Amino acid sequence: MKVTPWEVSGRIDYEKLIKEFGTSHITQPLLKRMEKLAGESHFMLERKIFFSHRDLDWLLDRYERGEQFALYTGRKPSLGIHIGHLLPWMFSKWIQDKFDADLYFQMVDDEGFLAKEDMELPESTRVGYENALDVIALGFDPDKTSIIIDTENIKPLYKIALQVAKRTTFSTAKAVFGFDNSTNVGLPFYTSIQAAPCFLPSYLKKMNVPVLIPAGIDQDPYWRITRDIAPKLGYYKPAAIHNTFLPGLEGPEGKMSSSKPETTIFTTDSAEQVKKKIQRAFSGGGATMKEHKEKGGNPDIDAACQYLYYMFEPDNDKIKEIFDGYRSGAISTGEVKDMLTKKIVAFLTEHQKKREQARKHIDKFLLKD
Amino acid sequence: MKVTPWEVSGRIDYEKLIKEFGTSHITQPLLKRMEKLAGESHFMLERKIFFSHRDLDWLLDRYERGEQFALYTGRKPSLGIHIGHLLPWMFSKWIQDKFDADLYFQMVDDEGFLAKEDMELPESTRVGYENALDVIALGFDPDKTSIIIDTENIKPLYKIALQVAKRTTFSTAKAVFGFDNSTNVGLPFYTSIQAAPCFLPSYLKKMNVPVLIPAGIDQDPYWRITRDIAPKLGYYKPAAIHNTFLPGLEGPEGKMSSSKPETTIFTTDSAEQVKKKIQRAFSGGGATMKEHKEKGGNPDIDAACQYLYYMFEPDNDKIKEIFDGYRSGAISTGEVKDMLTKKIVAFLTEHQKKREQARKHIDKFLLKD
Repeated sequence: MKVTPWEVSGRIDYEKLIKEFGTSHITQPLLKRMEKLAGESHFMLERKIFFSHRDLDWLLDRYERGEQFALYTGRKPSLGIHIGHLLPWMFSKWIQDKFDADLYFQMVDDEGFLAKEDMELPESTRVGYENALDVIALGFDPDKTSIIIDTENIKPLYKIALQVAKRTTFSTAKAVFGFDNSTNVGLPFYTSIQAAPCFLPSYLKKMNVPVLIPAGIDQDPYWRITRDIAPKLGYYKPAAIHNTFLPGLEGPEGKMSSSKPETTIFTTDSAEQVKKKIQRAFSGGGATMKEHKEKGGNPDIDAACQYLYYMFEPDNDKIKEIFDGYRSGAISTGEVKDMLTKKIVAFLTEHQKKREQARKHIDKFLLKD
Repeated sequence: MKVTPWEVSGRIDYEKLIKEFGTSHITQPLLKRMEKLAGESHFMLERKIFFSHRDLDWLLDRYERGEQFALYTGRKPSLGIHIGHLLPWMFSKWIQDKFDADLYFQMVDDEGFLAKEDMELPESTRVGYENALDVIALGFDPDKTSIIIDTENIKPLYKIALQVAKRTTFSTAKAVFGFDNSTNVGLPFYTSIQAAPCFLPSYLKKMNVPVLIPAGIDQDPYWRITRDIAPKLGYYKPAAIHNTFLPGLEGPEGKMSSSKPETTIFTTDSAEQVKKKIQRAFSGGGATMKEHKEKGGNPDIDAACQYLYYMFEPDNDKIKEIFDGYRSGAISTGEVKDMLTKKIVAFLTEHQKKREQARKHIDKFLLKD
């Protein structure tokens, strides 16, 4: 397995990642505490899709003492938002609703430009605004959501990033991010720009604001340097909550990725495209209908079952019913695929409508610095 | 001798610098051409205080064809502006007046912070505004002068700097600026921020604007990378005009430096301080009054003679008279020192008044981006 901010491949051993990265399990008591404070449970927590954290217990301590925390997540602009991208964003929306948390969403058009040979900056920025529509479509509260466009909001970001950059040597950046002497001088500094929103709520509100970062665990290296530096700047260390990866439609290894469009469902896909992609998806069922009925299938590796589990069947009773039925052979691969297709098509029909509506009121969501 | 953007020491061989840096002499025909276009001569050109250039001939070609050029110079904020700092700024003012050129003056509060262990960012910015008063006091035209405070005007600078940074590897930054792995990740990127004003006039005016940088030749490495990159971005290469260094009061080696306050005249010095410092200055005269009268002195190494030559006696006839008299022994070291003291005290009295007045109208000079 390989898990870095740039590559996720192989069969992921999440236990090993927790050990290697030095993060913590979301234990049952912590889970219960979170549910109690939220006033309800969330299936992504119950199902251990969010499975690891840093300082989540500390964050909840603060919350219980009346300190509002802020959420921070983000994206490197590129065309092709897929449903795997939406997973942590949907969870962020739940946190925003239940904990009344401000969300800072960083659209890193600068990195999009610096990291990609043939990308022009205006195009990266344009795509950033386009990607913002997918975020807004998920229903975030405009009064509690600030989308940061790096090149537009650079003024507050730069002042914070300078503080981080001064305390980060090129050696450290090399070790953590794998840079070398042929790396352009923009990327090592950019890591400080990505750290800046961890401290932006505190900077803007002129008081120390705890921050929670919901993200794939592959992004964790970014926050290690930031967490080391935070106390030196008088800020809280950002807390994090990590999700496992939504696998690609081609099977249980790696994660859904825009670079494999044939096995990736984009938010802009038509019903026809969704249907076609799911029909071809990796099956955990028997080789023949007869064999499936006799021996059953394996929902833990079946792509359609997994997608229902990760995102599209939040009802715990129903998902148990589906998994049990699939395992026994009572429910066929075709039936699970049909179920999933209907769910995703219904979701995307609504999402695409909201995405277009978002164009009209995107201004309400942009950070005014 | 050592000449880098961070250190100037030893006896400077300017011919060697021209060869090593690959710049060009300001030849007599070029000098005459410049004087003709300016409508008058300037003693700093006639005396070869500005002695070297890059593409000055090209810039004048453009000017003759009706293309307005802009001036760009700047400063790393620190308390202690000395008269050596004023030299290229005074020359810039002359260029502004005679060639109707916009001046962009970059106050690099970000570098001031990144490069100095115990410097805080707000302090660096504050000192930047303080230093701006010395610039304004020289009489620049508020309608044609934009003082850039990096952290305030970062929005346009950042977009341009990203373009430069993407095309600058860490290897190149290492080779040109002497960075190593222990350098913080801010400084290599900062070199792109310092390059940005070369292209800012073009960026703001949405047309290609030639730029001339008047600066000490020690700053030349900064513009080498910028000049290499300019054509890739579709911009003109910045042209440059280089001055020799005003020596310290302690003698003809190195240059006047704030780190040697005893032999440096600051713009905030009192008449008493100026007098005291000049009295102690390095003398090119005879060991005794008698010897001086008999054998004469050497004005080329006498600090007071040099200061008159570099800045405070623009009249060519008068400076010749002084040098001849000093060389013959007719004018004593004490007399030259008195002359210089009077000139500098008169200049600083006026400068300090204008400097305080500048506080009230600094806003007129700040870049509105």
